[in-house]
Amino acid sequence: MVKFSSRVPADGTDAVGSILKAAADPKIISFAGGLPAPELFPVKEMEAATDQAFEKHGRELMQYGGAKGLPELRQWACQHVAEKENIRCEADNVLITTGSEQALDLVGKALVDPGDVVLVEQPTYLCAVDVFKSYGAKLVSVAMDDDGLRTDALEDVLKKYPEAKLLYTVPNFQNPTGRTIPEERRQRIAELAAQYDLMVLEDNPYGEIRFAGEHVPAIKSFDQDGHVCYMGTFSKTLAPGFRLGWVMATKEMIDKLTVLKQSADLHTDNLAQYATVEYLQANDLAAHVKEISALYGKRKQLMIDGINKYFPDKVKSTDPDGGMFLWVEVPGVDDTIAVFKECLKNNVAFVPGDPFYAGQPQPGTFRLNYSNMAEDQIEVGLKRLGTVLAKYVH
Amino acid sequence: MVKFSSRVPADGTDAVGSILKAAADPKIISFAGGLPAPELFPVKEMEAATDQAFEKHGRELMQYGGAKGLPELRQWACQHVAEKENIRCEADNVLITTGSEQALDLVGKALVDPGDVVLVEQPTYLCAVDVFKSYGAKLVSVAMDDDGLRTDALEDVLKKYPEAKLLYTVPNFQNPTGRTIPEERRQRIAELAAQYDLMVLEDNPYGEIRFAGEHVPAIKSFDQDGHVCYMGTFSKTLAPGFRLGWVMATKEMIDKLTVLKQSADLHTDNLAQYATVEYLQANDLAAHVKEISALYGKRKQLMIDGINKYFPDKVKSTDPDGGMFLWVEVPGVDDTIAVFKECLKNNVAFVPGDPFYAGQPQPGTFRLNYSNMAEDQIEVGLKRLGTVLAKYVH
Repeated sequence: MVKFSSRVPADGTDAVGSILKAAADPKIISFAGGLPAPELFPVKEMEAATDQAFEKHGRELMQYGGAKGLPELRQWACQHVAEKENIRCEADNVLITTGSEQALDLVGKALVDPGDVVLVEQPTYLCAVDVFKSYGAKLVSVAMDDDGLRTDALEDVLKKYPEAKLLYTVPNFQNPTGRTIPEERRQRIAELAAQYDLMVLEDNPYGEIRFAGEHVPAIKSFDQDGHVCYMGTFSKTLAPGFRLGWVMATKEMIDKLTVLKQSADLHTDNLAQYATVEYLQANDLAAHVKEISALYGKRKQLMIDGINKYFPDKVKSTDPDGGMFLWVEVPGVDDTIAVFKECLKNNVAFVPGDPFYAGQPQPGTFRLNYSNMAEDQIEVGLKRLGTVLAKYVH
Repeated sequence: MVKFSSRVPADGTDAVGSILKAAADPKIISFAGGLPAPELFPVKEMEAATDQAFEKHGRELMQYGGAKGLPELRQWACQHVAEKENIRCEADNVLITTGSEQALDLVGKALVDPGDVVLVEQPTYLCAVDVFKSYGAKLVSVAMDDDGLRTDALEDVLKKYPEAKLLYTVPNFQNPTGRTIPEERRQRIAELAAQYDLMVLEDNPYGEIRFAGEHVPAIKSFDQDGHVCYMGTFSKTLAPGFRLGWVMATKEMIDKLTVLKQSADLHTDNLAQYATVEYLQANDLAAHVKEISALYGKRKQLMIDGINKYFPDKVKSTDPDGGMFLWVEVPGVDDTIAVFKECLKNNVAFVPGDPFYAGQPQPGTFRLNYSNMAEDQIEVGLKRLGTVLAKYVH
């Protein structure tokens, strides 16, 4: 028997793994995953970009590279957030990571000692819960409403835990709820971070996939003194399989994250980095993202239509302006897993809300994904879901 | 001021970073790096393999993949170690990692709680020291001789620390010394691991780059009951820039490492994985590795010749049968860094021995790399080195 460290989760705690496995049966219409639509991947363009990368930099891309990532890619990230988010930074403020999941892991490792308080949204991205727990964090949830994280609730929590190290937030089209935090709250989050010397980890994988409404500036754009680390990724705009993300922070923070990055995997794969640089030079990423957004917007609307048509009236759902997920609240349900199992029998699946809560879960909640579902399957799936929900709502 | 966790090294402790920076001046002949020879990278073949991967699996390789890595690659690793090392395993015993550095990090994270004893060779791979320290390990060094890790010393250490969690060893052409552990010692290490319920982390990046002598079976081939985790990599045989490694262990261990892998970066880059699978199908990796070994053997011999010609007689060095490094011991030197600085002034560089020691460093030691140095530069560099060393040896 191996004596695992206290960081390793106990057996049988991989609830989401079991759920995704159960939902993988091809008979099942599964809204459980979190995948982009593969039919929009620019395969030909990326193949051409990879060829270019080999022609121009064959030996460099096969050799060891720098821990911070390709300067061209870090420069691109700076220009990108300058245009999109009004964030001013230089290449030295950027670390390229093996997907933004690694940025989450490195920031957790850099800041969290066992017992340190980390604030998360209620509910929050479930892998963030795993990461922070693996470094011994004491997780404290901050309440949300339809406008995302409530800043009055954040202030209350900070009064109780003024020593809190970190706030993790997904301000745009949050995973799992699809909610977006409005501008005045973002400004307030930046103020509270400065006041309480709190680091904010702003994770923005979905912000560019907007199909309705107006862009809201990043929390980092209100940051005066280095209290916000901003995470970006190519996973939703280009190719999640390439595992390319980045984190933007003060030079001091980036230097420390780089030391940890070297221990984690030395540097991010050069092939994916060089290929992506060539893709960005030869193609119009913004136009590609517009195409993605249009498709997801169409699918989300079909999902909302199906919810209106088939779900009992008392069931509530969010109606996001972008991203990949929406969130459902079914009143009167005590055991969400029982509903999930009943749905599986009816060949439809979702992710039950429980694993998205760092604390006590709100029963009767679940997440639906619409980005990775053929249009003709959405209505069929929601009809099945509605049939099951009708048995639970009285 | 950010309050970093206790895992983050203090400022000014990145000795190796400073050394490599100092040695990067193009005037300097630097034996400090640890890079493969880029002129042997199979750039054309890998470009063709990448095209094949896009043609066959364009959408899959851009989409999210499984945390354990491509089944084809895990299967290949099983066949490879079955043929080379007489290790029997199945794809479920293999996790593909983002370079073998990540395997080191995940095994450290999975096993080491703060205060746990981890045994390392004296001297050892310096990044391993960083990884284990980052999880709070108490590092204990085990003495070596010309035949690598001394098993009598290991037994003494285990009597003193019977609770030791892990032994980290590089049995073939060790980094930094170039030493190789003979078969009977490997068998003894496996016995002691079983007796003391110790996990052995056998790291084998260099074993295939053999230019003299006979292959020695892996420690894992003597493992009866899951006390050895075996690490392999494509970094020295194919392309370090792709960041592709693997770890082989019991299914229980692999399942736990997979949970941690998901928190670390979800999965390893699909582009590099699919391209490598295509490369392995279309090319003869063994023939390519033979070519690498022949070149490194030639360079090592030039280095040995230069040492014999230019170094003072009292200076000792190892004479490896493979790998990329050899190890020099200069008697009578107290301050290796002073020698290093003097060498820089003479436009030649190495890595001083100090950072390779988890405990008290042995003064007057340093590492020389021969894999990444043009033949005509080796003699020139060693002549410069010899001139400086002559001032220190009396």
